[in-house]
Amino acid sequence: MIRFDSLAAFDAALADLTVPDAAATAAARDRQAQLTKPAGSLGRLEDIAIFLAGWQGRERPAITRGRAAIFAGNHGVTVHGVSAFPASVTAQMVANFQAGGAAINAFSAAAGLELKVAALDLDRPTADFTAEPAMSEADCLAALSAGAAMVEPGIDLLVVGEMGIGNSTAAAALAARSFGGSAAEWVGPGTGVDSAGIARKVAVVDRALAFHADAPVAAFETLRRVGGREIAAIAGAILAARRARVPVVLDGFISCSAIAPLASENPAITAHCLAGHRSAEPGHARLLDRLGLAPLLSLDMRLGEGSGAAVAVAVIRSALAAHDGMATFAEAGVSGAA
Amino acid sequence: MIRFDSLAAFDAALADLTVPDAAATAAARDRQAQLTKPAGSLGRLEDIAIFLAGWQGRERPAITRGRAAIFAGNHGVTVHGVSAFPASVTAQMVANFQAGGAAINAFSAAAGLELKVAALDLDRPTADFTAEPAMSEADCLAALSAGAAMVEPGIDLLVVGEMGIGNSTAAAALAARSFGGSAAEWVGPGTGVDSAGIARKVAVVDRALAFHADAPVAAFETLRRVGGREIAAIAGAILAARRARVPVVLDGFISCSAIAPLASENPAITAHCLAGHRSAEPGHARLLDRLGLAPLLSLDMRLGEGSGAAVAVAVIRSALAAHDGMATFAEAGVSGAA
Repeated sequence: MIRFDSLAAFDAALADLTVPDAAATAAARDRQAQLTKPAGSLGRLEDIAIFLAGWQGRERPAITRGRAAIFAGNHGVTVHGVSAFPASVTAQMVANFQAGGAAINAFSAAAGLELKVAALDLDRPTADFTAEPAMSEADCLAALSAGAAMVEPGIDLLVVGEMGIGNSTAAAALAARSFGGSAAEWVGPGTGVDSAGIARKVAVVDRALAFHADAPVAAFETLRRVGGREIAAIAGAILAARRARVPVVLDGFISCSAIAPLASENPAITAHCLAGHRSAEPGHARLLDRLGLAPLLSLDMRLGEGSGAAVAVAVIRSALAAHDGMATFAEAGVSGAA
Repeated sequence: MIRFDSLAAFDAALADLTVPDAAATAAARDRQAQLTKPAGSLGRLEDIAIFLAGWQGRERPAITRGRAAIFAGNHGVTVHGVSAFPASVTAQMVANFQAGGAAINAFSAAAGLELKVAALDLDRPTADFTAEPAMSEADCLAALSAGAAMVEPGIDLLVVGEMGIGNSTAAAALAARSFGGSAAEWVGPGTGVDSAGIARKVAVVDRALAFHADAPVAAFETLRRVGGREIAAIAGAILAARRARVPVVLDGFISCSAIAPLASENPAITAHCLAGHRSAEPGHARLLDRLGLAPLLSLDMRLGEGSGAAVAVAVIRSALAAHDGMATFAEAGVSGAA
């Protein structure tokens, strides 16, 4: 398992990326061609099965221990009125996760995922990143390690999600610093602020981009300066999953913003990731495009918590069920195409 | 249960449509507003839960006995070389369904659906509809009744699907006769014919439209003249489900072509239907648009068999899991929006 005990450990993890198992990929592709259906007729479900075969290193991939890892953090930037909800809701929702009453509880159960929640120093919000870095180096490394710790041996699929009042503002700043574009291009309503709230968010992101303009654009610095603990934890989980060849299902705008600085530095980091869905947050489609990821679902969800990704796991399970359970043309005595 | 023992019975079923339970709809909508999430943040999953509440007549809808009803039929029009597969594959695939080796078996199991297959006179293909009606009145009524028989008491969700070599040509003819447009606008590669095959399909549909041009455009006549047994059975199942207020999940181009003549005569017929997915068949997006249905999934599937609809049921189950399982703001002690 990766421990991010230094900046060098982070840089090494991002520079030295595993690749999928070529033999398992080829075997899965061959199998798809023999199953009783016109070639290619299951569309993206075929791609998903082959993708998982490669990362799990077996012709017939399976989700025997899928985990939804949800990280929570608080944000100093909430002092600027960037959210429709008070910052106290982050802790309240963590309690709701623990009591089993949130959307992600229902979706994880429906998708057969174990749900694990990490609340990261909720009583110690990040600093207001319009005036200083959100986190110290040590704090950012600790958050990355908290994320990596979720990738325990035996996990064969990882869903990442988050809860953090104010974090769609951080996500917009991360996207802008990673891929360029103005604050207005990346800011959206988040959990539901009105147009005045959006204007406040744009102003906050603009100020943050200006404040950090001269800082290095390296992935770690971007995460540390305008990210948040739960966002850095997602980045750490994604890196640790890559090391362990565990496929990852990304959720919405915020979880994608966690990988944005990594992808800006090394675009190959997205190769073990599926985009669970495209959310209603306007910046998400643009962000997916920059990451080179096509979403599995597009259901106008905008909740976070890993919710869209967990729903997508139900589709992924269908892909694996067909890949594993279908008969071949030879087995079933069905004629192929003329 | 509906029995289509006369044309009058068909016309009555299509004219006299049930409506969803208004009280259950309102109760479900109220419940969604109280669950621990920003209002509307589950997007279409909220709509799905409210839709099912209305049709099932209960604030908390459930899928306790969902059925995938798959109908198979053979088509005289295959003499014109409109499919990449020989007509014998219809019966071979029915055997594959019965042996459990097809995609729909895997998807039904993954979605918790009971799978029921009806093979409709496979040894008696419909007539070549470029030169005569595909079915007699009696044959079409029998197929409609076979479909209706699938809507047994206790079924609370119905997925409809089909198998029938040649039936994407019938589907294109049905769409064109129902909604206008040229053959070329509705014909596509189906299971995978090449451009010469598409040209043959276009010519066949053009000839069929010309041959039946002076016939009445009533729903029944269109189904009977250019449809097929499995397609008429889907129409019968949809009508019977409506009578019983059972929500229906439509599959791809062919299952949507079964409702097209009905919708052309009475557009309200689609109100108890969800579009499970948008397939890769080019005409399907246009057909969904004419039907006023937005697909839940878009995964480039083009298999038929109810496969896309069955995969969509996994998403529908997630919607119901959240609707039923989530805590309210009051229950969880979570603050609402400021």
